[in-house]
Amino acid sequence: MSESTIHWHGRGTEPEAIERFYSVIPAGGIGSRLWPLSRAATPKFLHDLTGSGQTLLRDTWNRLAPISGSERIMVVTGRAHRAAVEKQLPELEDLNVVLESEGKDSSAAIGLAAAILEKREPGVIIGSFAADHVIGDTRRFRQAVVEAVALADAGYIATIGIQPTEPAIGFGYIRCGEPIGSKSAPSAMAVKGFVEKPSLETAKKYLKSGDYLWNAGMFIARADRLLEQLGKTQPALLEGLRTLADAWDTPERGAVVDQVWPTLTKIAIDYSVAEPSAKEGLLAVVPGDFDWDDVGDFASLAKLQSGGRKSDLAILGEHARVLADSSSGIVVSESQRLITLIGVEDIVVVDTPDALLVTTSEHAQRVKSVVDALKLSGRTDVL
Amino acid sequence: MSESTIHWHGRGTEPEAIERFYSVIPAGGIGSRLWPLSRAATPKFLHDLTGSGQTLLRDTWNRLAPISGSERIMVVTGRAHRAAVEKQLPELEDLNVVLESEGKDSSAAIGLAAAILEKREPGVIIGSFAADHVIGDTRRFRQAVVEAVALADAGYIATIGIQPTEPAIGFGYIRCGEPIGSKSAPSAMAVKGFVEKPSLETAKKYLKSGDYLWNAGMFIARADRLLEQLGKTQPALLEGLRTLADAWDTPERGAVVDQVWPTLTKIAIDYSVAEPSAKEGLLAVVPGDFDWDDVGDFASLAKLQSGGRKSDLAILGEHARVLADSSSGIVVSESQRLITLIGVEDIVVVDTPDALLVTTSEHAQRVKSVVDALKLSGRTDVL
Repeated sequence: MSESTIHWHGRGTEPEAIERFYSVIPAGGIGSRLWPLSRAATPKFLHDLTGSGQTLLRDTWNRLAPISGSERIMVVTGRAHRAAVEKQLPELEDLNVVLESEGKDSSAAIGLAAAILEKREPGVIIGSFAADHVIGDTRRFRQAVVEAVALADAGYIATIGIQPTEPAIGFGYIRCGEPIGSKSAPSAMAVKGFVEKPSLETAKKYLKSGDYLWNAGMFIARADRLLEQLGKTQPALLEGLRTLADAWDTPERGAVVDQVWPTLTKIAIDYSVAEPSAKEGLLAVVPGDFDWDDVGDFASLAKLQSGGRKSDLAILGEHARVLADSSSGIVVSESQRLITLIGVEDIVVVDTPDALLVTTSEHAQRVKSVVDALKLSGRTDVL
Repeated sequence: MSESTIHWHGRGTEPEAIERFYSVIPAGGIGSRLWPLSRAATPKFLHDLTGSGQTLLRDTWNRLAPISGSERIMVVTGRAHRAAVEKQLPELEDLNVVLESEGKDSSAAIGLAAAILEKREPGVIIGSFAADHVIGDTRRFRQAVVEAVALADAGYIATIGIQPTEPAIGFGYIRCGEPIGSKSAPSAMAVKGFVEKPSLETAKKYLKSGDYLWNAGMFIARADRLLEQLGKTQPALLEGLRTLADAWDTPERGAVVDQVWPTLTKIAIDYSVAEPSAKEGLLAVVPGDFDWDDVGDFASLAKLQSGGRKSDLAILGEHARVLADSSSGIVVSESQRLITLIGVEDIVVVDTPDALLVTTSEHAQRVKSVVDALKLSGRTDVL
């Protein structure tokens, strides 16, 4: 860490929370490619994947609390995870818990948070950050958020795009356009568009061109502007969200949720807001110059754990008992069993009480298809 | 199988037991290289490694019963395994159970059987066959035993050496000399000597020369001759065995065992009898032209299970639940867990309730050193 970072953590130098800003943490998504570690009952955000000693959700909270203030973080999660989330976040106020009776994708989750917050506090700026990503440098992350908030205040839908460090094929990319020329967001650029996970060849071109950033799914906007943009492409969804928000802080919440929530359209906010806004020239991106990973699969996890050293064997699990002889990769132990590895390289072993996965970093992306196969074959006992 | 084999199994064509012949099955040895499947409590011979639906011990019994008669098979095993052995072999007569209070290696085990049997039936010929080997063709095995018994009757210590089919490095070899020229054992040759597990290069030379057979540890001899040879190199051991045999069928057995057994020298019969007898020109070998394997490690087991096809994934375990995607090797499942393999080749996964092993066929021989490391570190709970 740089000297300035050390200074940052010194007493009395903590920056104040950003005014008018509210953090939203959508804590949903199982993380299928991390099966059998991540499951419906214990999704990715409830695991400690960094070895920090706390869950990714808690890490996310700790990163955001100084930025927006801990009383200004809203968590949107499934009803099934309420207890686990509240255990992780004892400071989380009841007011700031939004429970989904079923997952309706990110437009509904973030849109509802925006609608509730806009009703409570007109003109509020919200920033949505996934509960299960890993960020290396909190100071630089904050700097990017500060710029993004300035853009949001100026009417943009802002995102933070990560400076790519390699031709990753596991992430979507943001294609950058001209600099915005904002004094309070000097590094901001217009967004020309979004691209899905590319081939390696394409990813290499992106990296070389310097015009692309990784899409980390971070969106910062005035709540009213976000809802306005959502209404352009998804008017019915917006209407549903407004109805929910109107009832939210009243005794009718339960009844209205039961009636309206099931009818909401399932669509990612990338499609309902981000891409259309980019076409309108309303999307701006702040380059984020910090380590970031969505820990999408066990290859990412292994890399994260080993600091990129291929020869290492990373071991995750509080009670892990591992005996390894000339082996590398990652062992995730959720059981108390003795795990012995002999001469296996780049291996991925995930050991849980009812399911075992053995694969390699190279094939880690294929875990999701196995989960799909298990679903199809009705073996939901291990999902 | 050939036509003659089918004929062999037909009604009324079963050959009679060989006269004066007694089978001895030393059922000892854990099979460390098959850890964590084989353990002190459940050694290799108590496992079904062929998928036959029965243990190797039972397979061995079934192979020998028609040769010597089931009332003429003696089993030498550890006290701890008595119940398991008797459960596997309900026909085994009490008279034919020799229990060791502690393992004293093969000279003591086979020597004691020889001494007891010689006392009961002077002039008896015994054949000792491991409890945990796999043999493909019972008819050819019997043919070899018949020749070996004839050699034993003529005063030789006889062994059956397996025709090598590949330059195996996991077996010891027998160096053959001139043909014996026996009418009743036409294929028999003198044994020039024994060699330990060779390097691959040496094994290739052995295979090419045609002068070497695999040492399968089968010894057939008149009990009196075997004891005589043992006495030449291990007089104290012989004396101990004679003392035990004298007391065996008397009320003093228990007291004498307690007194004498702990004093017996631990030495393999290869060193105490076979090699010295070869030097004296008293050792003869019958080539065994049948499939044989000592299933020494998981690579052997994988090969055995897949019939030598490298692309296959062999699955062993009554309750195995395996989901495999482009993977090969072997899975041994002793738990009820779902085991998922993705893109791992030549893999060895052994899943037991308290220990998991992941290695490759190539490194399967190294399992023993892991077991040794576990012993040294005191982690005997999983051994």
